[in-house]
Formats: sequence, C-alpha cells, structure tokens
Amino acid sequence: MKPSGPNLRAIPDGDDRERLFCGDCGFILYENPKIIVGAVCTWGEKYLMVKRAIEPRLGTWTMPIGYMELGETADQGALREVWEEARAVAEVDGLLAVFSFPQISQVHMIYRARMTGPDFAAGPESLEAGLFTWDEIPWDHLAYPNVRMALEYERQVKGQTGFAPIGL
Amino acid sequence: MKPSGPNLRAIPDGDDRERLFCGDCGFILYENPKIIVGAVCTWGEKYLMVKRAIEPRLGTWTMPIGYMELGETADQGALREVWEEARAVAEVDGLLAVFSFPQISQVHMIYRARMTGPDFAAGPESLEAGLFTWDEIPWDHLAYPNVRMALEYERQVKGQTGFAPIGL
Ligand SMILES: [Zn+2]
Ligand SMILES: [Zn+2]
Repeated sequence: MKPSGPNLRAIPDGDDRERLFCGDCGFILYENPKIIVGAVCTWGEKYLMVKRAIEPRLGTWTMPIGYMELGETADQGALREVWEEARAVAEVDGLLAVFSFPQISQVHMIYRARMTGPDFAAGPESLEAGLFTWDEIPWDHLAYPNVRMALEYERQVKGQTGFAPIGL
Repeated sequence: MKPSGPNLRAIPDGDDRERLFCGDCGFILYENPKIIVGAVCTWGEKYLMVKRAIEPRLGTWTMPIGYMELGETADQGALREVWEEARAVAEVDGLLAVFSFPQISQVHMIYRARMTGPDFAAGPESLEAGLFTWDEIPWDHLAYPNVRMALEYERQVKGQTGFAPIGL
C-alpha cells in the first residue's frame, strides 16, 4: 500500500482541537511543538561556526543547532549537535536564549558552551566548520537573525554567570 | 478498519535512528521530545495552586502546567495553562526553571508570573484552585518534586530580575 499517513482533520471525541488523522488506518497524530537545541561554543576568544550543507539556508553560517532527539536532555542535545555538525567536544555553562516561533511551532534553546579542546571538523551536515574571532564571523552570511542575537548576547554576558536567557 | 497506527520499528532510508511506522499504511512517525509549560503565579504574597482532577497524580497539588500546543510561544502556553486550570489571568516576568526528563523525553519550562487580578476558580482539569501563603502550600501533597523546586526558587529570587533559570 502506498504510504498516506495522517492527512485528514477532525476533532477527536473528548478533545477540543482539530487533530490530523489517517483515513486508511484511523491513527490520530497529536502534533506538538518541536525543540531545537544549539550552542554558541567558544575556544578562547574564538567562536565555533558551521556552514550548512543542507536546506533550509544551505551555504549560510550558524552555530551548531538542530532538532532535540528522544532520550536526551536539552543541553545534551545541544552538545550532540556540536559534535555532529562541528566534530567538537564542549561543555555547557549557561542558557543564552529561548526563542519561540509560534508560526512554525518551534522553541529554540541556545546554550553557552566552551570547547574542551581545539579540535573541530565539518560533520556530514556541514560544508565547513571554523573558529572565528568576533570580527571574522561571517556576519553577512548568517542563517537566521537568532544566530546574531545569540552571538551578541554571548558577548554581552561574557565572564558573567547567573544571567537570564534572552527571549522567553 | 480498526485503528492500529505506527507500531513497528525500523530505520528509514537516509536516517540514523529507529522510527515508529505503521504496517497498514507505511506512515513514519517522527517522535520528538515534548514541551511542558507552567507558571508559578503569585497574587501579592500568595501562590496559585491547583489540585489535579486527572491522572497522573490525581488529587495532588501543582502550579498550573501542561503540554505546550501548536501556534503559541512557550510563555503564552504557560499563561494558557494558568487560565485553563485556574481561571486566572497573569503576566509572565521571568523563566524560573528548565527541567529535562530524558527518560520520558520531556522538557518542562516553568515561568514566574503575576496575577493581574484576584479572580481564580477550578478549571475542568482541576478539582480545586487556591491561593496559598507560603506556609499554607500543601507541601505534603505536591504532584512532583519539580513543583517544590520551582516554588522554592521563586522565593529565592523574589524581587530579583535577570536571574538564571534552575535546571538547564
Ligand atoms: Zn494510516
Ligand atoms: Zn497506518
């Protein structure tokens, strides 16, 4: 049978919202907002950035960031993305930003992290990885406005602990 | 046809993890961590609490908290839960806690909020709602340890702005 999956909408019994369900087998899909986790990682004065090898925004630069997976904490997910996209090992030491995007039902949680060694390399979802001084960051080729916002906030709270994340 | 839905596991082409798929129609379910949003709400010196009318932990007390829905920000979701469970109107003014529970793939985001008026009432998922002084809070009948942790942190940062959330 050709995959169809949930593609019809109705309000299930006892619910108060429309949900997607499958006309073939009756499965009801409860869609939930998705969590995106990432980290502004530093090594000394330098920032770890990756050039995206996949759409959307292929060829633009970002901190390592991606979908949180099952079975991990949000900060573990951020460090997994650092490893997957930039082949770097880091430690989280604060939450920089919580950005909600209700139009696409995403919450982005961006941590501050420090690399524990100088090694890095492009992972399979990156065209390049690099360590940049502040002035070297490819500001004109960033993937999204929140990349700049997270980088600027990291600089603003540098050396501080106990800061509130930007966003809400 | 009786609903079966995704109940088989395999690694899809081009993926690196097992996913659930439906043997009837082939639909692949990409499960993601879920976001739970809630708020420690105060009215003057008093704390807004609800007694759960649904499982799990029916009959125990908590701050208003529940699943974030599509199309809202995390803080809007927290205030929606305050309205749905305690029929109170409030404003968020900080992020108290981010608790990850990897065993159940949940991230709980608990905000600090202030009621904008004295009205409250039990919503459909609550047996009771109440405003309690610190000493009146039903400490021995709280739903989860994170309820106590969020309440205690609210008290610790009372009057402060710019505090870091507990958890990560
Ligand atoms: Zn189906
Ligand atoms: Zn199916």
